[in-house]
Amino acid sequence: MDAEHLSRIGRLQAAMAAADIDAAFLYTPVNRLYFTGLQTSNGLLLVERQGTPIFYTDFRYLEVAHRVLTGIEIRKFKLDKEQLADYAAMGANWKQVGYESDLSVAQFLPLQETFAKAKMVSVTKHIGDIRAVKCAAEIDAIRRSAAANDALLGDLLKRFRPGMSELEMLRQFRIAEAERGLTESFDPILCAGVNAVECHHQPDGSILAPQSELLIDMGVKVDNYCSDMTRTLFFGDPTPRFKEIFGIVLEANAAVRAAIKPGMRCCDADKIARDIIAKAGYGDYFGHSLGHSVGLEIHEQPNLSFRCETVLQPGMVVTDEPGIYIPGDVGVRIEDLLVITETGCEVLSHTPHEIILPC
Amino acid sequence: MDAEHLSRIGRLQAAMAAADIDAAFLYTPVNRLYFTGLQTSNGLLLVERQGTPIFYTDFRYLEVAHRVLTGIEIRKFKLDKEQLADYAAMGANWKQVGYESDLSVAQFLPLQETFAKAKMVSVTKHIGDIRAVKCAAEIDAIRRSAAANDALLGDLLKRFRPGMSELEMLRQFRIAEAERGLTESFDPILCAGVNAVECHHQPDGSILAPQSELLIDMGVKVDNYCSDMTRTLFFGDPTPRFKEIFGIVLEANAAVRAAIKPGMRCCDADKIARDIIAKAGYGDYFGHSLGHSVGLEIHEQPNLSFRCETVLQPGMVVTDEPGIYIPGDVGVRIEDLLVITETGCEVLSHTPHEIILPC
Repeated sequence: MDAEHLSRIGRLQAAMAAADIDAAFLYTPVNRLYFTGLQTSNGLLLVERQGTPIFYTDFRYLEVAHRVLTGIEIRKFKLDKEQLADYAAMGANWKQVGYESDLSVAQFLPLQETFAKAKMVSVTKHIGDIRAVKCAAEIDAIRRSAAANDALLGDLLKRFRPGMSELEMLRQFRIAEAERGLTESFDPILCAGVNAVECHHQPDGSILAPQSELLIDMGVKVDNYCSDMTRTLFFGDPTPRFKEIFGIVLEANAAVRAAIKPGMRCCDADKIARDIIAKAGYGDYFGHSLGHSVGLEIHEQPNLSFRCETVLQPGMVVTDEPGIYIPGDVGVRIEDLLVITETGCEVLSHTPHEIILPC
Repeated sequence: MDAEHLSRIGRLQAAMAAADIDAAFLYTPVNRLYFTGLQTSNGLLLVERQGTPIFYTDFRYLEVAHRVLTGIEIRKFKLDKEQLADYAAMGANWKQVGYESDLSVAQFLPLQETFAKAKMVSVTKHIGDIRAVKCAAEIDAIRRSAAANDALLGDLLKRFRPGMSELEMLRQFRIAEAERGLTESFDPILCAGVNAVECHHQPDGSILAPQSELLIDMGVKVDNYCSDMTRTLFFGDPTPRFKEIFGIVLEANAAVRAAIKPGMRCCDADKIARDIIAKAGYGDYFGHSLGHSVGLEIHEQPNLSFRCETVLQPGMVVTDEPGIYIPGDVGVRIEDLLVITETGCEVLSHTPHEIILPC
C-alpha cells in the first residue's frame, strides 16, 4: 500500500473514532478501489477503528492483492455462515458497526443479523467527506479526463451537422468515443433545438434543424476518474433571444469561476450564479443546483446547492453549470469542471464556451 | 396497460397470495419496466395482494405514465416522510411486506421502519420465477438481440487478425458496436491464446499470435433484452490438442441442444454436458455451471447448475455454455442461447461453432 491509500484509511479511522464507530464494512467496488487502489469486482474491506484493515477478495484477485496491498491483511472472501461467524467473533464488543447506504439489502441483512446487539450506522457521509478532497494524483487523472472530453467534443463538432437526428449524433458520439478507446462517465445528453429546455431529455429522433441550438452534456472516464462538461452550440446565426439567454448563463458561469475559493460555502457559490440569473429576470427558469462534485463517480458530495453549507476546500473538484430553460423557447446550460485551489480555482474544461457552427 | 403486463402483475399477486405477502414495494428500474412496460429511472410500483397497483413516478414521467398505464393508479413519487406516512396508513393491517433483495439499504431502511410491526420478506425469488418464463414478445426481442450479436461477431471476424492486442480488439468491438447503434449486455471477454483458460480474464495488452486461439464471449441489448454467445476461434491450423478439446466441448454443447426440453430439471441439463466432459477425462477442468437464464438482465434465474432443481418450461431462455480450461494449455468455451419450446429448444445463436481464420 502506498502512503496515499494508507492515509485515506487513516482519515476514515479518525472519522470513525470521532463518531464512535467500531468497524466499517465496505463492500462497494468504488470504495474498495478508493481505499486500496486495487480494482476488484467483488470483496470486502473491513476497517476497524484502530489497527490493520482486512481486505477480503475471491480467488481471482488473491495473488495481485498479496503483491500490491502490503501492510494490510488479505483473506479469502466467502459469502457464507462461517465468515459471518468470524466477523461476529471479531466484533464481540463492537457497539456501532458501519455500512454503506448504497449496499444491497441482500448484503446488509446478514450483517445486521450478525451484529444484532450493535447499532448499524451509515458511514456514507464520512466517506463522502474524505473522498471530496482529491489528492494530486486524483486531480491529475481528472485533468486528463477533462482533456480527453475536450478532445472528444472537438472531434464531434466536425461530425455534427444540421439534418442529423439526436440518435444519429449519439451514434456518432459512441463511435468517436470507441475510436479513442474511451468510456463515458454517464449517458450523454444531446438536445436539438427546443429539446434543450428539458433537463433530462433522452436522445430521440428529433432532427437538428439549421438555425437552431444544440445542447451537449458529456463526460468520459480516464484511469477511473470522471469528467463532465456542457456546451450549448448554435448552427447558423444565433437569434437575439438565444444570444440574450446565452449571455446571462455565461455571465453566471464566469462569475462563479472568478469568485469560487476555499472557505466559501457551497450554497454561496450557488447564490453567485442564482443572483445573476434572477436579476436578469429568469430566476424561475434555473431549476437545478449550480453543480456537484466529481471524482470516481460522476455525482459525489458536496453539491453546490442552495441547501449545502459545506465549506469548499482546496482539492475539491466541482462542476459550475448554471442554466436557463424557458419551455417552448430556449434552453442554455454552460458547464465547466473546476478544481478548488489554495486561492481560487483551476478550470479543467478548455473547450471555448461560445461555439457557432455553419448550417 | 396491455393484457401481458396486467397478467404479469396478476401472477405476482397470485404468488404473493400463496406466500401470504400483503404488499410488494418494487423500486428497481428493471422490475418496474418488467411489470409495466414503461422505462423510468426512478419511482416505485406498489403491488398489493389484491386490487389495483399504484405506480409512483416523478414529474418527468407523470404525463407518459398517465397516457400509457391505463388501469393502474398513478401518483407522484416523493422520498419524504409524508409519503412514508401514506404507505403506513395503507398498510396498517399488513403482516408481511415484500422488498427486492437488490434494493439499496438507503431505500430499504425507511420501509423497514415504516412497517416495524410487519415482517419484511424478499420477493426476489417470486419475481425471478415469473420473469423466467418469457412471453412471445420477449422471445422475439431476445431472438433479434441474438441476431444482432451474430451480425456484430461477423463484422468483428473481418477486423480481428493476429498481431492485435486484446485491448485493440476491444476497441474494434466497441467501434463496430457503436456503428451498429448497439449497446453491450456485459463487458465483452476477449482472451488471446492461453488467456482463454481464465474464465474471468479482462482484456489486456496480450497479443493475438498467429497459430493461436481466441475466445470471445459477447452480448448486446435490443429493446432492453440481452443476448449472450461465446465462440472459440483459431487463427491458422488448429493444433491436435485444440481440436481434441474443442471437439469434446462441442459434443457437450450439441448434446444439450439435442436433449434439453420442458420437464427436465436444470441440474439434469447440466449433467448431460458434465458427463460428456468427465467421460473424456476433463471433468476437473469444467469449473462453472452449464448456463444461466437471460432476459432483461444478462444473468437471471434459473441457473443450469448441478444444484438447481427447477424444472424447465417452454419460454425459458437459457445459455448452453460448457467449457474446458486447462491451465497453461488450452481453454475452450462454446455458448449458444436457447429458448425452451414445447418439444425441445430453438437455438437463437446462428454463428457457426467452428471458425478457422487465416493467420
